[in-house]
Amino acid sequence: MKFRAEIDVMPLDALLDPQGKAVTGSMKTVGLEMIDGVRIGKHIRLFVDADSKDTAAVKVEEACVKLLSNQIMESYSYTLEEA
Amino acid sequence: MKFRAEIDVMPLDALLDPQGKAVTGSMKTVGLEMIDGVRIGKHIRLFVDADSKDTAAVKVEEACVKLLSNQIMESYSYTLEEA
Repeated sequence: MKFRAEIDVMPLDALLDPQGKAVTGSMKTVGLEMIDGVRIGKHIRLFVDADSKDTAAVKVEEACVKLLSNQIMESYSYTLEEA
Repeated sequence: MKFRAEIDVMPLDALLDPQGKAVTGSMKTVGLEMIDGVRIGKHIRLFVDADSKDTAAVKVEEACVKLLSNQIMESYSYTLEEA
């Protein structure tokens, strides 16, 4: 079976996010001063071939740890659905 | 009221995504050959002050169009919840 994973990789709350801070500032410039607290990370979509959703989840975890996120600076979360 | 928006900005399906393609290749290298079709975009979290969810949605749309996405190359989607 084929599963689709939607993964979010975000900077840890304890860390500064200069890109997000710059965008928060720009919101004021374009007249959107009611928006704040912008934080910017990555969104990753991928497909996994696996026998079950549980097996697919193990593979997605492994991909997040080995390649997709830097756990010193980032946290990840994901959802998994049959594609 | 304060609302939290979780926004995904992804490269359009019709366009190549060289970063995603490189990561798909790297999956094989780390023994995750069952993973393919990786596409990489941005995930943005922000907060909106608004009287209602509808008003907040209008502001988030405006932020996506004016600042957060390039509609020639990217599509966006979001979810909105009371924070």
